[in-house]
Amino acid sequence: MQVLGNVRIASIDKGTGQVALSEPSVVVTEGAMIAWVGSAADMPGEYRDAERRDGGGRVVTPGLIDCHTHVVFGGNRAREFEMRLEGASYEDIARAGGGILSSVRDTRAASEDALLAQALPRVDALLAEGVTTLEIKSGYGLEVEAELKMLRVARRIGQARPVSVRTTWLAAHALPPEHARDRAAYLRDVVIAGMDRAHAEGLVDAVDGFCEGIAFSPAEMAQVFDHAATLGLPVKLHAEQLSDLGGAALAARHGALSADHLEYLGDDGIAAMAASGTVAVLLPGAFYTLRETKLPPVAALRRAGVPIALATDCNPGTSPMTSLLLAMNMGATLFRMTPSECLAGVTLHAARALGLDDRGAIMPGLRADLAVWDIDHPAELAYRIGFNPLHARIVGGKFV
Amino acid sequence: MQVLGNVRIASIDKGTGQVALSEPSVVVTEGAMIAWVGSAADMPGEYRDAERRDGGGRVVTPGLIDCHTHVVFGGNRAREFEMRLEGASYEDIARAGGGILSSVRDTRAASEDALLAQALPRVDALLAEGVTTLEIKSGYGLEVEAELKMLRVARRIGQARPVSVRTTWLAAHALPPEHARDRAAYLRDVVIAGMDRAHAEGLVDAVDGFCEGIAFSPAEMAQVFDHAATLGLPVKLHAEQLSDLGGAALAARHGALSADHLEYLGDDGIAAMAASGTVAVLLPGAFYTLRETKLPPVAALRRAGVPIALATDCNPGTSPMTSLLLAMNMGATLFRMTPSECLAGVTLHAARALGLDDRGAIMPGLRADLAVWDIDHPAELAYRIGFNPLHARIVGGKFV
Ligand SMILES: [Zn+2]
Ligand SMILES: [Zn+2]
Repeated sequence: MQVLGNVRIASIDKGTGQVALSEPSVVVTEGAMIAWVGSAADMPGEYRDAERRDGGGRVVTPGLIDCHTHVVFGGNRAREFEMRLEGASYEDIARAGGGILSSVRDTRAASEDALLAQALPRVDALLAEGVTTLEIKSGYGLEVEAELKMLRVARRIGQARPVSVRTTWLAAHALPPEHARDRAAYLRDVVIAGMDRAHAEGLVDAVDGFCEGIAFSPAEMAQVFDHAATLGLPVKLHAEQLSDLGGAALAARHGALSADHLEYLGDDGIAAMAASGTVAVLLPGAFYTLRETKLPPVAALRRAGVPIALATDCNPGTSPMTSLLLAMNMGATLFRMTPSECLAGVTLHAARALGLDDRGAIMPGLRADLAVWDIDHPAELAYRIGFNPLHARIVGGKFV
Repeated sequence: MQVLGNVRIASIDKGTGQVALSEPSVVVTEGAMIAWVGSAADMPGEYRDAERRDGGGRVVTPGLIDCHTHVVFGGNRAREFEMRLEGASYEDIARAGGGILSSVRDTRAASEDALLAQALPRVDALLAEGVTTLEIKSGYGLEVEAELKMLRVARRIGQARPVSVRTTWLAAHALPPEHARDRAAYLRDVVIAGMDRAHAEGLVDAVDGFCEGIAFSPAEMAQVFDHAATLGLPVKLHAEQLSDLGGAALAARHGALSADHLEYLGDDGIAAMAASGTVAVLLPGAFYTLRETKLPPVAALRRAGVPIALATDCNPGTSPMTSLLLAMNMGATLFRMTPSECLAGVTLHAARALGLDDRGAIMPGLRADLAVWDIDHPAELAYRIGFNPLHARIVGGKFV
């Protein structure tokens, strides 16, 4: 049992979505869980002898949750980024071995240990900003063994570092060249057969896909989702990033936890998501990197009551970003989300996007995953750019 | 004398602007200066007995130079940021005491010690990313004593931390309300009289102003620059940020070190800057925060041979940013500068924007201000978002 005293608790009102900051308060943890929250004067006597820490009047939020990342991958695409800025065409880059297939090639070639070693500095950057739960997708293997390898690395990250890792099967990320002439075989032999393997090995917590003209169609994704349902796996979808194929509505029909990106989401998709309780995961790092000008329909999502989450989308091509605080700033600056919405987007709603109801808020009975900040007001987390005011991270009740 | 061995040196070709990475090399420092650079095999015998460090094959760049900041200020404008996103108008915010005048009020009210304490975490964030020279402007005092106080704090930052600080007199930043009806008196009694005081006290290295419809006219800035010339102080200017008033050309006529912002810079201004050797300091953090859509004329500046620098513009209103690496990424992503240009923009050209010819490159005779990075290729510094691969910072020959 531990008592964290003299902290101001940032809590999100589930009705209004507003963040309120408490008077100096106490959080009592028992093991990995929050046992009690309230003012020092009201604290039950049974906690008076517990180990006590003084929070120095700092602000405490739920531990941050990055609910959409591709943080495990091989290779380094900085040189491709440079070529593009030096005027190379996509063809030039493809000829030079760049693009997503270079990540596939380098991920396939890398050992599990090598992938882990490359991912850990990225993970550490996220954790240094208060992340306590991290989603990690496969999707650069595009063959069964390499996809499984990615998820094994993801699980090892959760052992190597004090963070909860949630894994997502994203074999339906792109069609690899060896299957270019047989999409059905890829879906059957890799996406679906691999999902069975991953599930049997306990490697997968959810199933995802990239529904887009350049990737997989809604009909193809429906097959994948139907198979996921037979395994009892929840689904989510990269949808409406570049065009409106009705991916979000498809995901909603399958009871998806989330639909992600959503710049081109229309009213039908919003209504479907609202009806199914599907979370909208917005990814401003990709919007920014691609210099997209079509904004996701934040105001309409807000009006419809669709919960909005924010994530880094950390990936080597379209969002080489390892700062969830910066995703919050981009959510505010680029998407006009309020700082309260940004904080809910990386805590309460991000938990829901992962199907986790045991975290994302500071309440008795939830996991004691907390972030302690050297700030005066929670809005600072979204306001500042490239600044990390984290004082301490608490994961499952432990200061780490 | 110290030998830093086994490092790959990122050097900028002054002709092509391209960054080249050397084979594993040696940098020898003597006191604060670089004494010798070359391959280990060629190292003169006199250095063989010097203290030696192994760079582990890492990449070394010149120490980064943030050549435009307002890092000293009082107060906190996070709540104003939040109000704006919650739909408050500028009038609402002004009524609630927000806007630049809130920074002025809080800066005037704060003691030197308080301003220093508030600035240091921001400075530390910059230094943690390899900054070794930092420009700091006044401009939130808007009365003589408060402006001098800001520059005293700036000088104290240079004593409190291992970083070279260059100070800039920016009393011509905004017209304070008490002078709203007498601009001439403000220029005479505060901007010019205060400049004399600051110069007499050794507090000022350059003179700057905000030339804009909402601030000072070119004719007013010409008076300020003429006075700076009598004191032998170099000048620079916030120009063409919101409209084209010919500020850059004015600055160029006064031999300015730099003209800064420049989104609305036209061909005449570019030609004038090219002729005078004035550096274009681009500030993508303000462009991003203001959701500006007019891009600075990077291609035209490049064609005209105007050196381009990048800086954070760290300030509480339009760029609450404390990451020069992020300014590099924004220079590439938003302004389409190449990673080589971004690196030159925070080293070689940033030094020139401050009138410093003793730093910004890795050559014998220059200051031993270096940054050692855990990267494979210098392009990674601009490519990654919210990641800090700094291994070590060397300031004046000392590892810090
Ligand atoms: Zn993604
Ligand atoms: Zn400025």
